[in-house]
Amino acid sequence: MSIRDNVRKMKEVSPVVASLPVSVRDAALREIAEALSEHREEVFAANREDLDRAHRDGIADSVMKRLKFDEHKLSDCLAGINSLLALPDPVGKLTLKRELDEELILERVTVPIGVIGIIFEARPDALVQISCLCIKSGNCAVLKGGRETASTNKVLFDLIRDAAQKAGIPEGSLLQASAHSEIDELLKCDDCVDLLIPRGSNAFVRYIMDHTKIPVMGHSDGVCHTYVDEHADPDMAIPILIDAKTQYTAACNATETLLVHRSIADVFLPKAAKALAGNGVKLRGSAEAAEILKNSSSGTGTDSACIAGDDIMAGDDFRKEYLDLVLSVKLVDSVEEAAAHINRYGSHHTDCIITDDDSAAGQFMSLVDSAGVYRNCSTRFADGFRYGFGAEVGISTGKLHARGPVGLEGLVTYKYRLHGHGQIVGDYASGRKSFHFRELL
Amino acid sequence: MSIRDNVRKMKEVSPVVASLPVSVRDAALREIAEALSEHREEVFAANREDLDRAHRDGIADSVMKRLKFDEHKLSDCLAGINSLLALPDPVGKLTLKRELDEELILERVTVPIGVIGIIFEARPDALVQISCLCIKSGNCAVLKGGRETASTNKVLFDLIRDAAQKAGIPEGSLLQASAHSEIDELLKCDDCVDLLIPRGSNAFVRYIMDHTKIPVMGHSDGVCHTYVDEHADPDMAIPILIDAKTQYTAACNATETLLVHRSIADVFLPKAAKALAGNGVKLRGSAEAAEILKNSSSGTGTDSACIAGDDIMAGDDFRKEYLDLVLSVKLVDSVEEAAAHINRYGSHHTDCIITDDDSAAGQFMSLVDSAGVYRNCSTRFADGFRYGFGAEVGISTGKLHARGPVGLEGLVTYKYRLHGHGQIVGDYASGRKSFHFRELL
Repeated sequence: MSIRDNVRKMKEVSPVVASLPVSVRDAALREIAEALSEHREEVFAANREDLDRAHRDGIADSVMKRLKFDEHKLSDCLAGINSLLALPDPVGKLTLKRELDEELILERVTVPIGVIGIIFEARPDALVQISCLCIKSGNCAVLKGGRETASTNKVLFDLIRDAAQKAGIPEGSLLQASAHSEIDELLKCDDCVDLLIPRGSNAFVRYIMDHTKIPVMGHSDGVCHTYVDEHADPDMAIPILIDAKTQYTAACNATETLLVHRSIADVFLPKAAKALAGNGVKLRGSAEAAEILKNSSSGTGTDSACIAGDDIMAGDDFRKEYLDLVLSVKLVDSVEEAAAHINRYGSHHTDCIITDDDSAAGQFMSLVDSAGVYRNCSTRFADGFRYGFGAEVGISTGKLHARGPVGLEGLVTYKYRLHGHGQIVGDYASGRKSFHFRELL
Repeated sequence: MSIRDNVRKMKEVSPVVASLPVSVRDAALREIAEALSEHREEVFAANREDLDRAHRDGIADSVMKRLKFDEHKLSDCLAGINSLLALPDPVGKLTLKRELDEELILERVTVPIGVIGIIFEARPDALVQISCLCIKSGNCAVLKGGRETASTNKVLFDLIRDAAQKAGIPEGSLLQASAHSEIDELLKCDDCVDLLIPRGSNAFVRYIMDHTKIPVMGHSDGVCHTYVDEHADPDMAIPILIDAKTQYTAACNATETLLVHRSIADVFLPKAAKALAGNGVKLRGSAEAAEILKNSSSGTGTDSACIAGDDIMAGDDFRKEYLDLVLSVKLVDSVEEAAAHINRYGSHHTDCIITDDDSAAGQFMSLVDSAGVYRNCSTRFADGFRYGFGAEVGISTGKLHARGPVGLEGLVTYKYRLHGHGQIVGDYASGRKSFHFRELL
């Protein structure tokens, strides 16, 4: 059967899945945890096959690390399932209850979104995490994992699907796509897939966004900023900057651009450059920043000064996401200018101000139009686990529905229920009756 | 200046608008109400021009009614502004406050969406209502009204913009597009418009959805159902059905399809057909429904029986949105079958069950995948005013962000604020520190 036929069937079964009590959904999570534990050796064996093939194909070490599924990754997955079990049911929450008139009660209640397509590159542990989030939130899911871990994905998916069905999740509510051609087929299912969540490289996510009418939740770029204000404590700023840039350079929440208030640049920039250079970070700056670094580099003994000449940064250069030990640098005159730069060249992901001044912090956090606005801490905190969401399906830089790290709450929508006793609109239009709107919640 | 340049400027000013206190936004609403009252004669005169031109162009009476902006429409607009003034500020609401660790506080706060494009056909009162909703929610708005009321729109828009600026809303945060070509230009501004809200005919809304990468909120079709269950009280069902079909046939929330439980069809259908025929409604049914109606029509003296032969309804015929005094009819065997039909052929707008049986009602409301699921009342209740939202920008049949009638709450998103004191992720990754997640709200 084609993906399209399968997804259409899934769409039909999705209201049944959405109506399952949380006891069944939680039981499915417990069965999955048990199955993964019990069959760990099968999973590891499949993963070794994938790793061997990847090795033969000459895949880079940094990627290899992401392909691995070992005892350590398994225990992370099991811990994730346990924290999902501990979280309250996101479905069926009453968020509004209003008496419109005598015996005419309006309710708004959270419900699962329905059918979610998840397309991700590499990371077999993401398959476990994302399917469990979908099950807990009462959604059906079509999963398409990366080719590099096809064997691991297959074993994991079969275990998850069988365990879920054993607990009473209907057949056909979890589906794995394996052929690459199925991605394009899935992108065309806008009449039966409610939401797509792509996870992978910028180019990959952008391709998905550009080739479907299905709403897409996620992000392509992650151009995060750290702005060091004139009232910043440099002893706080430098460790934060080093963490934000180097703790995991390939992450979307790593800082890519350092903005510094002009009034402190002469002193702060050389100091920061030295510390960053000590951590292997190369700076690329605006003409002015480069000048300061050049003049100071002999004095500080750092070789991290910007490359001068053609390599001076300007305009759209500041849109660059390095995902590497490189950092853009620019000077600004005010919080407003910092915010304007971030709003223009950033990706609305996560941006931070380092300052001791409450008013500057308030202004920055209000003016910066990003999912996360931070004060005095590392941009690397933007993550579902660190926010206490238990797990995340991804981070959204869109402004609609869910923003920032997306956990269970981002996987539900709501419906309005209206309970009447024969009321008709004609009576209200004619003035024979009128609404009185009384909150019952 | 082109629309694109103007919208780019608007994007830049939008964080400032988003940061305005509610006192300024409310003052703008009061200024607008005053300006509209004071300059009513100018508005009426412009509207007379539009109506004269429409009359000369031979526009249908039903449309003419929607073009009119008179004392009555003005007083509705003023009442709408007053109810918006009475509503609490949707911006700046804290929806999460969590201590992640000592002195590391995460907050989630509602913020305006940013720049909203609203494209609507006819209805000059919609211009007033929608701009006021945008102002109250701290958003910037580009408005493109219908050609038929160009003069009225221009006078209304100029009054609104000037009044808003008088109250302190920055220049450039409200913009009117007037040329039709500007619609296509606006649809391409996906880097600076955060949301599009189209209001108009199905074809119009579908055109917008198909020609932009900007997220679109709204609905094209409104195929609503009323399902008369085997445990329905016919004396309640028939008046509801007549209201749902005839109270305002052109509305998206009018019922287009009647589903009847097979066990009561022989008795209920002829009775309903007679009452509907008395209100000018023509039925079009499945073969089986047609048969019942044909057999009964001599007895009941109704001429409303389905047209037999080629006109028998089947399959995709049930996707038809009549917006007229015509109703599709089909028999079903169960609540499940009714829900499956609605989910397959409906538009996920608003659907109702008529029943005295709590368990059937519960099942229907759970299985039907629509923004509104009703029991024992007219589908015509699906409306922002009737839900107590004060006003609405439209009704969304999408499942993401906002669903059903969309008022102020649908015009805000949120951002996460993280307040730290130098925390870095490295300390949590190494295990030197750990999160403790304590709710502060």
